[in-house]
Amino acid sequence: MVPHLVTALKGPLLELERRFLEATPQIERWFRLEWQEHTPPFYCSTDLRNAGFKLAPVDTNLFPGSFDNLAADTLPLAVQAAMAAIEKYCPDARNLLLIPESRGFSPNYLRNVARLSAILRQTGLNVRLGSLDPEVRGPTPLVLADNPGLVIEPLVRRGRRVGLEDFDPCTILLNNDLSSGLPEILKDLHEQVVLPPLHAGWAVRRKSNHFAAYRDVAKRFGKTFDIDPWLIDPLFASCSDVNFNERTGEECVEARVETLLRQMRSKYREYGIAETPFVIVKADAGTYGVGVVSVKDASEVRKLSVRQRSGLTVAKEGLEVTRVILQEGVPTFESIDDAWAEPVVYMVDRHVVGGFYRVHAGRGRDENLNAPGMQFVPLPFAASCNLPDANASVEAAANRFYAYGVVGRLALLAASIELEKTDPDQSLYG
Amino acid sequence: MVPHLVTALKGPLLELERRFLEATPQIERWFRLEWQEHTPPFYCSTDLRNAGFKLAPVDTNLFPGSFDNLAADTLPLAVQAAMAAIEKYCPDARNLLLIPESRGFSPNYLRNVARLSAILRQTGLNVRLGSLDPEVRGPTPLVLADNPGLVIEPLVRRGRRVGLEDFDPCTILLNNDLSSGLPEILKDLHEQVVLPPLHAGWAVRRKSNHFAAYRDVAKRFGKTFDIDPWLIDPLFASCSDVNFNERTGEECVEARVETLLRQMRSKYREYGIAETPFVIVKADAGTYGVGVVSVKDASEVRKLSVRQRSGLTVAKEGLEVTRVILQEGVPTFESIDDAWAEPVVYMVDRHVVGGFYRVHAGRGRDENLNAPGMQFVPLPFAASCNLPDANASVEAAANRFYAYGVVGRLALLAASIELEKTDPDQSLYG
Repeated sequence: MVPHLVTALKGPLLELERRFLEATPQIERWFRLEWQEHTPPFYCSTDLRNAGFKLAPVDTNLFPGSFDNLAADTLPLAVQAAMAAIEKYCPDARNLLLIPESRGFSPNYLRNVARLSAILRQTGLNVRLGSLDPEVRGPTPLVLADNPGLVIEPLVRRGRRVGLEDFDPCTILLNNDLSSGLPEILKDLHEQVVLPPLHAGWAVRRKSNHFAAYRDVAKRFGKTFDIDPWLIDPLFASCSDVNFNERTGEECVEARVETLLRQMRSKYREYGIAETPFVIVKADAGTYGVGVVSVKDASEVRKLSVRQRSGLTVAKEGLEVTRVILQEGVPTFESIDDAWAEPVVYMVDRHVVGGFYRVHAGRGRDENLNAPGMQFVPLPFAASCNLPDANASVEAAANRFYAYGVVGRLALLAASIELEKTDPDQSLYG
Repeated sequence: MVPHLVTALKGPLLELERRFLEATPQIERWFRLEWQEHTPPFYCSTDLRNAGFKLAPVDTNLFPGSFDNLAADTLPLAVQAAMAAIEKYCPDARNLLLIPESRGFSPNYLRNVARLSAILRQTGLNVRLGSLDPEVRGPTPLVLADNPGLVIEPLVRRGRRVGLEDFDPCTILLNNDLSSGLPEILKDLHEQVVLPPLHAGWAVRRKSNHFAAYRDVAKRFGKTFDIDPWLIDPLFASCSDVNFNERTGEECVEARVETLLRQMRSKYREYGIAETPFVIVKADAGTYGVGVVSVKDASEVRKLSVRQRSGLTVAKEGLEVTRVILQEGVPTFESIDDAWAEPVVYMVDRHVVGGFYRVHAGRGRDENLNAPGMQFVPLPFAASCNLPDANASVEAAANRFYAYGVVGRLALLAASIELEKTDPDQSLYG
């Protein structure tokens, strides 16, 4: 089941993985204590990059799709973890309202919704689907070959509660990243639990907040386990008031890219890494890889093509981007069948429940792989992420994946702290 | 992976399984609410019997061995469930002391101890082994080919705490069923958590208490889901002051067997079951199948062989038996490769984490299979027990196994209630 990985492992990563493996009980206890202080988001997926010399999260999604790409034999883990989460928020819950993306139902996305519904149903909930799309005016079947029963219905607001015509949920689970704004119909729902909270939506969430929280987590973790935080943390900076179309704010981007590249060169020298550093320029909000540009020199910032500028200016659902995040590029050194690959780790509540490789045959190892043309290779990831084999070599797949599970959960912890810190005044978003 | 099952399914069981499947969200919610009232034992395994017309637990073990017989891919479930349990009892725990059986370390049992240690270690605990055997006077390696690191050490009592020479645990997990009595060294440990509590040990535990609690659980469950409790509950009765060697108390056994057979015949008529009823006579305490006798007529009670009498009188570790439980015999209708089989469901905290079939080629379908010569067929059980497929037929393996997971958890719930009810005065066992 484990795909063939080109693991030309050299240098510090082996050392890092060994450190994780040796410290497994301590690391697990560290997480246990952290989760006493912080509440994990209901679910989360993290894109990791394994550069061989460094293993770091590059994106953390609080509205994960693609649950259908998890290996089927790892699903009971998701059910068990979801049970723990549901008990925390709504112990006597009977009904859960799942709000998926509003439009563009690809068969893949529908399979994700079907899978997610099945997981939630198995925790003992009646699950129904509600739509934020005003075009949905009555129960609407969603056509999916192997799951004929999927129906989406219009939301109905009643005072301080939202539901469906004949369905009053205790919990509302968003699988819609709210790129187009925080919907009025979901505001001020003080009697119901909205998961994740509205301020996790891309209309207000900022990647720079996440990576600032991650930086703190990586520092604390690094200090506890005597690990250079840089080995698990991508450097980053951000610029506000940038408009690439109108060519305003570019000097900030240029300056920050220059600084990041300098910092990276210094780190590369320290570890004897013979790679060319690059920086990823992307919108500070929003998902998908439309506006993700890779630059190897600060001068490239002013030479972006019209297409690149446009991609960086308007993200998904027309969300306008004036804040930009500059992130240390972490090249992937993993490939499957000659295509570069990056691991994506899925978590529910505090637990790793699975994962897969995102593979893109048309992209380079220093490019964003989250783009049309990508494919998914499910892994028996959960078993591996949770059960390292102390007797096997560090290169063994189970052990590599344990490291992925650790770094994935560090990003999960950072997301918890990010959401605490960005929790707005109740009067604003309620 | 699923072995070939002879599933000559007829009659009410299909109906029962269909009821379970249809009511899945309600059943899961029912359990969720029950676990708010009752704390499950740390771990538990239940032997089930599927008669085709009836599916019922026949034995519930609170010190489960054979963790090594669970399919490896289900282990992360055990880890996740154990994490939840540890958090409840000892959230900042660093050290766990595992007390295995004292003697007779078969390679199988050592594999169980190694597997259990690995699961616990992965929850973030330092795990070490302590022995109740006074012969263990220093760290003693336990020889196991594929796990060279297993060492057992003498217990050290310090005031109100127990541990090892240089090891002070928060939690003490017993994998020793205390058949030979409640050890002085484990009494009055008010500062530490002993799991399961001492009164779960066979020195004091009684099967009749368990099945009385189970009867109540089955009644409540049956009432909620409109299921005849008899379909999931074996009838039973018990007799005290029985000594088969001295031939005292036999008249009670005879009378109760007679009554049970009459009740069974009446139920068999009600459901049109053309089987010969039989009753299992066994000690009300203790494990293993030494003293398990199957009788089809009350007159057989007085005609037991010397060997049968002796088996019923002295159980494991010389524990003398004067109380006897008479249990409705549930024939198994499952076989694997021409040998009769019964499913064993494993649970940690409130979750089904795996299972296997116990198979015995030398025994009949109306006999105890837990006897020398038995074999184990691990199943990808957890996936199936937790994720029924509502779209597949009722006969599909995943759906059959969901039913096993439900009945297994009913026994788990009964064990929780049994332990609450039998919790002795603190001054007695503490």
